[in-house]
Amino acid sequence: MNRISEYSALAEAEIRALDFPKDEFDGLYAPVAYGMQAGGKRLRPTLLLMAADAFGKCPEKALRPAVGIEMFHNFTLLHDDVMDKSDLRRGRPTVHSKWDENTAILSGDTMLTLATKLISEVDDSILRPVLDTFNDQALRVYEGQRLDMDFENLDEVDFDRYIEMIKAKTGALLGGAAKIGALIGGASSEDADRMYDFGMMLGVAFQIEDDYLDTFGNADTFGKPIGGDINNNKKTFLMVKAIAMGGPNADALKAALRMPAGPTKVKTVTRIYEAMGMPAVSKAEVAAYSSKALAAIKKTSLSDEAREAFRKLIDKLIVRTK
Amino acid sequence: MNRISEYSALAEAEIRALDFPKDEFDGLYAPVAYGMQAGGKRLRPTLLLMAADAFGKCPEKALRPAVGIEMFHNFTLLHDDVMDKSDLRRGRPTVHSKWDENTAILSGDTMLTLATKLISEVDDSILRPVLDTFNDQALRVYEGQRLDMDFENLDEVDFDRYIEMIKAKTGALLGGAAKIGALIGGASSEDADRMYDFGMMLGVAFQIEDDYLDTFGNADTFGKPIGGDINNNKKTFLMVKAIAMGGPNADALKAALRMPAGPTKVKTVTRIYEAMGMPAVSKAEVAAYSSKALAAIKKTSLSDEAREAFRKLIDKLIVRTK
Repeated sequence: MNRISEYSALAEAEIRALDFPKDEFDGLYAPVAYGMQAGGKRLRPTLLLMAADAFGKCPEKALRPAVGIEMFHNFTLLHDDVMDKSDLRRGRPTVHSKWDENTAILSGDTMLTLATKLISEVDDSILRPVLDTFNDQALRVYEGQRLDMDFENLDEVDFDRYIEMIKAKTGALLGGAAKIGALIGGASSEDADRMYDFGMMLGVAFQIEDDYLDTFGNADTFGKPIGGDINNNKKTFLMVKAIAMGGPNADALKAALRMPAGPTKVKTVTRIYEAMGMPAVSKAEVAAYSSKALAAIKKTSLSDEAREAFRKLIDKLIVRTK
Repeated sequence: MNRISEYSALAEAEIRALDFPKDEFDGLYAPVAYGMQAGGKRLRPTLLLMAADAFGKCPEKALRPAVGIEMFHNFTLLHDDVMDKSDLRRGRPTVHSKWDENTAILSGDTMLTLATKLISEVDDSILRPVLDTFNDQALRVYEGQRLDMDFENLDEVDFDRYIEMIKAKTGALLGGAAKIGALIGGASSEDADRMYDFGMMLGVAFQIEDDYLDTFGNADTFGKPIGGDINNNKKTFLMVKAIAMGGPNADALKAALRMPAGPTKVKTVTRIYEAMGMPAVSKAEVAAYSSKALAAIKKTSLSDEAREAFRKLIDKLIVRTK
């Protein structure tokens, strides 16, 4: 197996095969099933399966843990949506708007425990490192979410802290997925750690890309309205980096951020970003983190052929900018 | 070691020794530390330590998992308080009223992952059964909470479903604590299962007792105002059982439940319960579940001397009615 779409199809099929208790506990598990049907790229389970296949030619042994990683990801989305009071995700009502907040909290908790169970479906010999990797990435994700929430109350965010935030909030989960897949494939602990680094760097590149697309992407392919981050004054790569760059454009940006939300604000801020060359700055940063991801892969004992799949994954994610 | 207070003191000391990251992640971990300092009886870790000592004379090996069980318990209280919009717990502001709801959700999630990490601090040879026991009891707790929430929207609750709810919401965690302690002590899987049954039955007795005390207890020793359940029309053992008993008093009870909250309502409902003999009915049910708990202990391979500690634990919990 070597096409990325084959791994994601495998993950998707396993997710669709999930079976939940019906009847009296439907109020608990129907929102879980709904949260898992959200679709999306299935990037995290895809990466886990790819890593298991690269090291051990055994993607099928990694299927349930791959679903576990996606379950964890969807648990974080479900609780994040409650915290952000977001009514829509990928065009569908969020769990708390379709049911209610208490249901979203409780079914989210359920997803975290179900994710831990799924992740644990590995050989006894690797249960402890797999579980430790999973729990440690989970704590990093919460720390990242906490930083992100703290940033909301700040006028300016230090660029290094922004990078630290996305490493935790986005990078750690991709790192954990790659490392767990590698462990299932029988990788040495050194190789598994390098795969963690790969996932981490890929995650940072991916998040910067996502921040870029929220302003400069195509609404049809991006999947949500363009300019949402600008209207919410969200501390994105574009905003944090532009302010860190300083100068008169940065001052103009700070003034524009005080404008009321709306198309005029989006247009004004976007023009300032363009004047500052932010699209090029953003692409350069994505390229830099992609190179770090590739460098991590090159340090593993994987053959050139096996590495190729991960290079393709980076290309696939970065093609999104074009 | 054989006095219950020694086990609870051991648990308390280990909880106080917990160390959390400070500085930039204080917004995540300070609410966790606060939630763990709530005090209380420390019943769950005490039971876990007692079981480890009974089977293996090794309470010290069980200390971190005991803290994990208490961490899980406090995680559920933290999220339950958000769902119930409760501002006080044991006389202190709840986490969401001291900080905010989003902090309570995120720090609660953090507690669940930290609990899983603490529970996993056992020998590799028993990691899987301990982890499975922990995750399965967690799902039962969520199912119990879901049933409890569903009951709020019902005029009447079937008595058997009420018992099922408290088995899940309260019994499963005590069962899990006893079973995990037994496993750490080296118990056979049969003995460990009997300890689960012991904890489960103890939990049901304990919850019926707690429901009783909410109406008939002493405010000073109970720790919260008497009559809260009546004012909230909460589906407690007293209400569900009294309505199941039927007759004119049950009809009068249904009418009284429609009264506005306040001391008159509490007095009226309490008098109906008294007229129906609910204190005696309640004590009989507590005694019946206590007997089931004792019967489970008798089926284990434990010596009479080792069993004695668990009999004392039941007595200690049931003495509360007097």
